[in-house]
Amino acid sequence: MNRGRLIVFSAPSGCGKGTMLAEILKDKNYRCSVSATTRKPRPDEKDGVNYYFISNEEFEEKIRRSEFLEYAGYCDHYYGTLLSEVDPYLKEGINVILEIEVQGAMKVKEIRPDALFVFIAPPSITELRRRLNKRGTEEQSVIEKRIEEAANEIAASIKYDYIIVNDALEDAVSDFFKVIGAEKLRSENCHELVGEILDKK
Amino acid sequence: MNRGRLIVFSAPSGCGKGTMLAEILKDKNYRCSVSATTRKPRPDEKDGVNYYFISNEEFEEKIRRSEFLEYAGYCDHYYGTLLSEVDPYLKEGINVILEIEVQGAMKVKEIRPDALFVFIAPPSITELRRRLNKRGTEEQSVIEKRIEEAANEIAASIKYDYIIVNDALEDAVSDFFKVIGAEKLRSENCHELVGEILDKK
Repeated sequence: MNRGRLIVFSAPSGCGKGTMLAEILKDKNYRCSVSATTRKPRPDEKDGVNYYFISNEEFEEKIRRSEFLEYAGYCDHYYGTLLSEVDPYLKEGINVILEIEVQGAMKVKEIRPDALFVFIAPPSITELRRRLNKRGTEEQSVIEKRIEEAANEIAASIKYDYIIVNDALEDAVSDFFKVIGAEKLRSENCHELVGEILDKK
Repeated sequence: MNRGRLIVFSAPSGCGKGTMLAEILKDKNYRCSVSATTRKPRPDEKDGVNYYFISNEEFEEKIRRSEFLEYAGYCDHYYGTLLSEVDPYLKEGINVILEIEVQGAMKVKEIRPDALFVFIAPPSITELRRRLNKRGTEEQSVIEKRIEEAANEIAASIKYDYIIVNDALEDAVSDFFKVIGAEKLRSENCHELVGEILDKK
């Protein structure tokens, strides 16, 4: 059985990452890893679905035991990806998606260079502003801050392997699957295949 | 307008390269470059279609004028790809396919690292032998020589960017287009796009 692919998936806020992931996860060969955190669950969040909510002591114990693929402190809390959320699934041939922001992604790149890095971008900053304004849930100053963050992330997107513009959801999802399909044909992923073709001689 | 992509396309004899190319060329965004040669045309070959048939003097004059992307001597004759068959079309946004063998491909790789290298492989050497035998046009010793050459080329395929197995024609053609589509999304080809997204700020 072929090993699954570790896929790092990042997108600025307002790029439709959630809707895209919901579409992708309809395919049973894909799984989104659930992060662990020490922050308290919000009313609508469920343990083991949105996050694994664990105590500070548990988290630090897992750090000591090297149970994390990556972790970081943010706003007085830990967030991290457990190896148990990733490697067992890859072995089963499932593609595991890590939904993380740019800085975390770059850390993963150092330790898992075999991972595939996909960045989801808005068609333009103007369109992103329109989308964020349309939500109507945030103050203008918050929106401008998000846009500034997004611009920084988009500038860093060049460090990813692929950039997919989410203009129309269907096209963006189709682009995603196209990328995964083409990746399997890249010669660096075909050493075993070439051996198989020749061994049958 | 986006520039077209230079695509180097190689396959051992018996891998269905011709049928694949015929399918691909139905798409008007693709063009196969016509090589120049100093050998005489065979009865069914047409000048400007199969090759540009030119004299030795003309060929050497074109070499002096640096009119070739690549050229080589083979069995007392010159064969080469004229730049005029490639660059004007790329500028117009047409993808230009160079159908050449592995050694020529590696020479192109040195001078045109921006080209995309696609290798078409048979499902197995056994299947390739079956296909070559089925043709029934060649002696067994010739077939065995072709198979040996094919095995060498398949071993070198790892130097290409992509390896597409031509088992079923339709799947192989679809893989080809998938590869071209995904290539456009590779971040190294998206510098302009990232600029556009950000400039619209």
